[in-house]
Amino acid sequence: MSEQNELNVAEEKIDVEELAQRVSEYISERKYSELKEFLIDMNPADIAELMEEMEDKYLPLIFRVLPKELASEVFVHIEGDTREILIASFSDSELKEVLDDLYVDDTVDIIEEMPASVVKRILKHADPETRIEINKILKYPKDSAGSIMTTEYVDLRKDITVEDAFLRIRRTAVDKETIYTCYVKDDNRKLIGLVTVKDLLMADYHDKISDIMETNVIYVHTSDDREEVANQFSKYDFLAMPVVDAERRLVGIVTFDDIMDVMQDEVTEDIEKMAAISPTDKPYARMSAIELWKKRIPWLLLLMISATFTGMIITSFESALGKLMVLSSFIPMLMDTGGNSGSQASVTVIRSLSLNDIEFRDLPKVVWKEIRVAVLCGTTLAVANFVKLLTVDRLLLGNSQITVFVALVVCTTLIATVMCAKVIGCSLPMLAQKIGFDPAVMASPFITTIVDAVSLMIYFRIATVFLNI
Amino acid sequence: MSEQNELNVAEEKIDVEELAQRVSEYISERKYSELKEFLIDMNPADIAELMEEMEDKYLPLIFRVLPKELASEVFVHIEGDTREILIASFSDSELKEVLDDLYVDDTVDIIEEMPASVVKRILKHADPETRIEINKILKYPKDSAGSIMTTEYVDLRKDITVEDAFLRIRRTAVDKETIYTCYVKDDNRKLIGLVTVKDLLMADYHDKISDIMETNVIYVHTSDDREEVANQFSKYDFLAMPVVDAERRLVGIVTFDDIMDVMQDEVTEDIEKMAAISPTDKPYARMSAIELWKKRIPWLLLLMISATFTGMIITSFESALGKLMVLSSFIPMLMDTGGNSGSQASVTVIRSLSLNDIEFRDLPKVVWKEIRVAVLCGTTLAVANFVKLLTVDRLLLGNSQITVFVALVVCTTLIATVMCAKVIGCSLPMLAQKIGFDPAVMASPFITTIVDAVSLMIYFRIATVFLNI
Repeated sequence: MSEQNELNVAEEKIDVEELAQRVSEYISERKYSELKEFLIDMNPADIAELMEEMEDKYLPLIFRVLPKELASEVFVHIEGDTREILIASFSDSELKEVLDDLYVDDTVDIIEEMPASVVKRILKHADPETRIEINKILKYPKDSAGSIMTTEYVDLRKDITVEDAFLRIRRTAVDKETIYTCYVKDDNRKLIGLVTVKDLLMADYHDKISDIMETNVIYVHTSDDREEVANQFSKYDFLAMPVVDAERRLVGIVTFDDIMDVMQDEVTEDIEKMAAISPTDKPYARMSAIELWKKRIPWLLLLMISATFTGMIITSFESALGKLMVLSSFIPMLMDTGGNSGSQASVTVIRSLSLNDIEFRDLPKVVWKEIRVAVLCGTTLAVANFVKLLTVDRLLLGNSQITVFVALVVCTTLIATVMCAKVIGCSLPMLAQKIGFDPAVMASPFITTIVDAVSLMIYFRIATVFLNI
Repeated sequence: MSEQNELNVAEEKIDVEELAQRVSEYISERKYSELKEFLIDMNPADIAELMEEMEDKYLPLIFRVLPKELASEVFVHIEGDTREILIASFSDSELKEVLDDLYVDDTVDIIEEMPASVVKRILKHADPETRIEINKILKYPKDSAGSIMTTEYVDLRKDITVEDAFLRIRRTAVDKETIYTCYVKDDNRKLIGLVTVKDLLMADYHDKISDIMETNVIYVHTSDDREEVANQFSKYDFLAMPVVDAERRLVGIVTFDDIMDVMQDEVTEDIEKMAAISPTDKPYARMSAIELWKKRIPWLLLLMISATFTGMIITSFESALGKLMVLSSFIPMLMDTGGNSGSQASVTVIRSLSLNDIEFRDLPKVVWKEIRVAVLCGTTLAVANFVKLLTVDRLLLGNSQITVFVALVVCTTLIATVMCAKVIGCSLPMLAQKIGFDPAVMASPFITTIVDAVSLMIYFRIATVFLNI
C-alpha cells in the first residue's frame, strides 16, 4: 500500500517540475497560444502549483495568458507570496477584473493575508456592493463562523413553485459558491427552511417550495467558533451550513470546502499546542527564523524554569545520592518513562475531547480506566526492568552497586511513577477544559515537567526508606 | 469567543439529556404516536446521539417508531455498540428492510465493525445485487480508496441531451449518495468525462453531454491510500472523486462526507503515533484497559530500554559528578529543555510533511532554518539561565557551589543541546519518510530519548574540560 502511494506521489512531483520546464520553454520561445492551449485543460489547483515552481518574473505573463474565469480560479488557489507578486504586477483594471470574479469569502481570505497597502488597493477596486459584503464579513471576530462564511447563496421564497425555483437558480447560479442547498427566508429575512437541488429534482414541477422544504434547519450563529462549525459539519455531513445572526436572520453560508481548510488548520493548531508552540496560521515554509523563535521561546523559557524545581529536588537529596551514586544513573530512565506514560494518557484524552468522544462528566470513568492501564503498564515495565537489572547489569556487566534492594527500589518507583503519570496525564486536560483553558496545552511538555518532579520525589522517598540512606 | 462557544456546547449537552428524558417519559406512558411526532422532525444524527443516551432496552422500540427511511439514516449515524444491540433485536425481515435502504459504502463500513456472526446475517439478508457490490468493496485492502468508495453514482452516456440527463437523474437519484457530479463512461466503461448538476442547470436543454462535459477528469485508483485521496480532496475542493481500476474503468466514487471521516481518523492516527501509541480505529471510550495497554506498552518498553543508555552515560561520569554534586541538579533541566526543543522542531516538520508543505528535497533549507532558530532560542535560554543562576541561586539562595564557571558550563551546554535537538528533531522525520517509515513515529518520545543522551554527553564533556574534574 504505502509503496504504491509513494510511487504515485513521486510521479506527481516529477510531473509538476516537468510541466514547469515545458511552460518555461513555451515562454522563452514566445509560443503564447501553445502555452494557453497547454494550460487551459489543467485544473486551477494544478496551475497554481505549477506557478509556484516558476520564476517570479514569468508569473504575470502566465496569468495573463489564462482566460479570465480560469485566471480567477487560479488566483484563489495560489499561495500568499505568489499572490502578492501578481497583485503588484496588476494594473488597476486587471485587479478589478480578477476581484469581480472571486467569491466574497475568498476575497476576504485574501485580504486577511495581504499587507495593508495591498488591502487598500483591493478594497478600492472592488464593486461598491462587494465592498459592503467584504466589510460585513471582515467585522466578525477572527475564527468565528461569520469570518469564514460567504454571503453569496441561493435564497428562495416559500410561495414559489419548483419550476420557478429552477429558473431562479439558473439565473443566479453563476455567482454562487454552491447552488445545491437553497435557503428559504420569510419577509423578515428569518431562516425558515431549506431545499436541496436533489429535493427539487425529485419533486413535481408544480409543487410549492413551502410543501417540500425541510423546516427543521440546523444552523450556526455568526459568533460561533469555527471549530464548533467544523464539528457540526462532520456530524451532519452537510454541503453547506447556514449562518444566522442573533435574530435568526440568514446572513451567509459556510461551505464544506472552507470547512476542510478549517479542520486542517485547527488540527495543526492543536498539534502545535501539544508540542509547546504558540499556534500560527502561516505554513512552516513561509515562517522566518525570527517568527519561529517568537512562537517557541516563551514555552521553552517557561518549561526551563519549571524544570529547575526538579533540579532542586535532586539538590535536596544530594547527600543520599552521594552515598549511592548508582541511583543517579536511573534518573533519566525514570523521568523519560514517566513523561512518556503521561503523554500517552494526555494526548489520547486531548484528542478524544476535541472529537467530543468524552466530556468532563466522564472524568471518574477515564481516571479509573487509566489507573487500570497504569497497573498493567507499570507492572510490565517493572518486571522487565527488574530482570534486566539483575541479569544484564549485575551479572553480565558486573555492576556490584545494583543489589536486589536497589532493583526493588527502582521498580517500585517505576510502578508508582507510571501510576501518577497516567492519572495526571488524563485528568489535567479535562480539568483545563472545564475551567475554560485549551486542553491541548496540557500535553507532553507540561505533563512531562510535572511528572519529572513527582517521579523524582517518589524515587528519593522510596530510596531513603528502603535503602536506609 | 471561547466563552460563547462553551455556552453553546453546554446548551447542546443539556438538550440531549433533556430530550432523552422526554423520550423515556413518552415510552413509559406508552405515548408512541407522540413519540413519533417528536422524533420525526429531528435530524438523524441527533436521533442517533439521543439513542446513545437511552437505556439499551428502549432502543428497538424507538427504532421501530421511526419511519423506514429515517430509521435507516439513523442506523448509519449510530455507534457500533448501539448498532449491534439493534441488529440483535431485528427480525430477519426488519434487517433486510434496513439494509435495502442503506448506501453500499455505509453497509461496508458497518460490516467492517461488526463481529463475524452479525456480518454473516447481514450478507445473508442483503439483495443479491447489493451483496455483489459489498463483496466487491470488501476485497480492497484496508485504508485503500477502493475500501471507502461507493458503487452507487450517476453515470451518463456522452451522446444524450441535457434534458435526457435530467430525466435519468430524477429516475435514479433516490438510490445515489450524491447526484451533483455525474460521470460519463465510454462503451468500455472507461471514464471519459464528468458534468455537474450546476453545469447541467446552466446549459441549454438540447445541449449534448459530450459538448458540455469536463474531459480533464482528476481521479484516484482503487489501490491508492485513503490519506492520498483526502489530500486530493482538500487540494481540489471536490464533492466527490471518481475511483478507477488499472484500466481506467470507473468502479466507484468517494464522497466528501466519507473523506471528512478519513481526515479525522488519519489525524488521530498521526497524533497517537507522535505520542508513542500504536494507532487504532476504536474511540478511547470504547477501548478496554487491556486494549489500551497493548497499544502503549511496546513503545514504553522500547523507550525505557533506550533511556538506560542515558543512564550509562551518567554512570561513566559518576566520579566527576561525585566531585561537584551541584552538576547533577541541572540534569533534569537540560534533558527537558533539549527534549522540548527537539519536539518543537520534529512536530512542526511532521505536520508540514503530512500537509505536503515541505518534502525531502527541502531538507537543507529546513536544517538551515532550524539552526538559525536554535541559535536564537539557545542564546535566549542561556542568557536567562545565566542571570537566574547568578542572582536567584547564588545570591538569593546562597548556593555557593554555583560559580561563574559552573553557570558558564550549564549555559554553554544549553546552547549546544538546543542546537543538536533542533537539528535532530527536524531531520529525523524527513529521513524516516525518505526511507519509507512513517515520520510521525519520529516525534517527541524518540527525539527526547536521543536528545537526552546527546545533551548529557555534551554536558559532561564541557564540564570536564571547563571545570577540570
